[in-house]
Amino acid sequence: MTEIQCSGFLAGGISAGLKKNREKDVGVIISEVTAHVAGVFTRNRVKAAPVVLDLERIKSGKSRAIIVNSGNANCCTGEKGLQDARTMADILAGHLNIDPEQVLVASTGVIGQPLPIEKIEAVIPELADNAGEGGIEDFAAAIMTTDTVPKIAIKKVNRAGKTYSVLGVAKGAGMIKPDMATLLSFICTDADVTPELLNQMLVRATRRTMNRITIDGDTSTNDTVLLMANGKSGVAIANKEDVRVFQKTLDGVMMELARMLVKDGEGATKLVEIIVRGALTDGDADQIAATIAHSNLVKTALFGEDANWGRIMAAAGRAGIEMDPEKVDIRFNDVLMVEKGCGCGASAEEAATEVLKKSEFNIQVDLNLGDGGASYFTCDFSVDYVRINADYRS
Amino acid sequence: MTEIQCSGFLAGGISAGLKKNREKDVGVIISEVTAHVAGVFTRNRVKAAPVVLDLERIKSGKSRAIIVNSGNANCCTGEKGLQDARTMADILAGHLNIDPEQVLVASTGVIGQPLPIEKIEAVIPELADNAGEGGIEDFAAAIMTTDTVPKIAIKKVNRAGKTYSVLGVAKGAGMIKPDMATLLSFICTDADVTPELLNQMLVRATRRTMNRITIDGDTSTNDTVLLMANGKSGVAIANKEDVRVFQKTLDGVMMELARMLVKDGEGATKLVEIIVRGALTDGDADQIAATIAHSNLVKTALFGEDANWGRIMAAAGRAGIEMDPEKVDIRFNDVLMVEKGCGCGASAEEAATEVLKKSEFNIQVDLNLGDGGASYFTCDFSVDYVRINADYRS
Repeated sequence: MTEIQCSGFLAGGISAGLKKNREKDVGVIISEVTAHVAGVFTRNRVKAAPVVLDLERIKSGKSRAIIVNSGNANCCTGEKGLQDARTMADILAGHLNIDPEQVLVASTGVIGQPLPIEKIEAVIPELADNAGEGGIEDFAAAIMTTDTVPKIAIKKVNRAGKTYSVLGVAKGAGMIKPDMATLLSFICTDADVTPELLNQMLVRATRRTMNRITIDGDTSTNDTVLLMANGKSGVAIANKEDVRVFQKTLDGVMMELARMLVKDGEGATKLVEIIVRGALTDGDADQIAATIAHSNLVKTALFGEDANWGRIMAAAGRAGIEMDPEKVDIRFNDVLMVEKGCGCGASAEEAATEVLKKSEFNIQVDLNLGDGGASYFTCDFSVDYVRINADYRS
Repeated sequence: MTEIQCSGFLAGGISAGLKKNREKDVGVIISEVTAHVAGVFTRNRVKAAPVVLDLERIKSGKSRAIIVNSGNANCCTGEKGLQDARTMADILAGHLNIDPEQVLVASTGVIGQPLPIEKIEAVIPELADNAGEGGIEDFAAAIMTTDTVPKIAIKKVNRAGKTYSVLGVAKGAGMIKPDMATLLSFICTDADVTPELLNQMLVRATRRTMNRITIDGDTSTNDTVLLMANGKSGVAIANKEDVRVFQKTLDGVMMELARMLVKDGEGATKLVEIIVRGALTDGDADQIAATIAHSNLVKTALFGEDANWGRIMAAAGRAGIEMDPEKVDIRFNDVLMVEKGCGCGASAEEAATEVLKKSEFNIQVDLNLGDGGASYFTCDFSVDYVRINADYRS
């Protein structure tokens, strides 16, 4: 599909033999000109080597290329790991004849095993030579681990006769409890945006989208979101209205990716939005929504299509937030299941059970205390999640 | 077994038809004389009706009897729920001709369904009449939900020619992430202890034992631990040495129950102690141990018998605690698997995999930063946990 592209960005993916079955496992995104760049990264104290490298390099606000491998996280790999991350960048920079300091690196996969850097080195020339404007799907495939589908979202904006694009790619599936940044996601735009503005807007968009999802409550050591802007469209994001529209577009692309991530969570069969209203503050609502979204008992009940609202009440109750159980209403989509803390009986239960059979729905919890609200996306917790993660390394 | 008893305490269990298959589901413990009592309860904001009732009644420090049902949590049941909890106590008190205010109540099971109080009322006379000194096993069976085995622990202490006992019973299995108190546990002693001392020692023992375990990270709405002391042995816990010995005995009984609880966690096949050492403070160590113990990814790897230490590092790193990944050592029992943040290679991996095949072992994480230490008991996370909880209400 030729439309899934962003001017001046070339992308590609190739197999280096890090994953089984010769699946693609190394990808690049290359900007034809030096782009401005912003990034948000994991807050885990254990940071993978490429995260450590990027944190240093991103300070310049400039980047020409990103190289990513799946199948190995290059984390807990000591000095060699850091050297391997640098080598990935160096080889690509040498081949493209660009500044290695302007190459960013990301890795995803098993933690604690040395990166087979020679396998990656061997494929970089072919990967770089074949990268093209239509190569984003190959790139999206190359960064997948236990993801079952590639995740790409694009939006285009017309401004004064010109068009710019925001094109995003992500991978997720497990070890996902965002904290500031999450998972791997790469976003390109051909708008012209200063590094400062880029950073502000990325932080804001991350908070609104990818920091509002959970799959299993574990925060990855490799979480990285990078946003590159190369200005190729000729549209500069300059005035307030430009910023508003760009932010909205970026939020939209990242929210689309975030929803795809949860939907394709390891073993997930359902995408569920937890909406909390009527809290004393937005922060309170957020804490309760997150606690419900993370509850293993809520998530296993979702898998069982069981409208077990008692678990929702119990999860809300342990969030450590002011609440009065006897004021709480709970809805599954629009079915009122709990009113003032008590169940609404058999017919409500029956209607709620119908909602639970859907692949996407929401659960609304109204505390009836104030105006605070927040929402969170979660998935169900299935037998397959356990199977996938019990056997992950074998 | 006549030895599993405590002087002056009568116990029993009966089926009232709350659970399927006519399993026992209502139990009593009756003290022949008024006992001193202490209790710790869930910190969940959503508290079941019997917890609300007990919190009020325990202020007197005196109790004659405890009545417990399984199969229904009597939680989120409104004013009727509170009335039902009172009725359970009233009927038992009327039959025994004791003060209803001295009867404590506990419930466990599904949240949000009205208690079929008439079924419980119907069996109370027979239950009370048949309660005996040897009835603790029937009581232990009557409080089980998804537990697969009853949980009883007893210790006896000789003091100046007399003997006193500390006899504990517990039920657990799911919705277990202790916060101050946890699950249901009832402990009897025939020692003579003041209510104040009883309370101090129970709080301390709970912190050391049942607040150091996790099964699934969800805190129940019905958590209750009650400790009754009726003085029947003639041993008064009076001086410092008495207190030290009693505390140690109580800790021992509760730790034995706590280990049984984790071992019989829903779907669990392994009991694993997470030991963190070398933290800057005990509090830091505790936070890291708890985060590892709760991690779904660590727990599924345990189920898969996969020595995936990267997940242990990642969980430690997201605990929000000061650490230097490059100083961390990790051992499975005595097998050094990670040294200074890097894996110890194939032969260590092989030896660690052998440890993981055991049904009980420990994981030691040494941060090498200071003297802080803590430990936590957890279990693995199996396919059966999901199965049990997907179908819990059906």
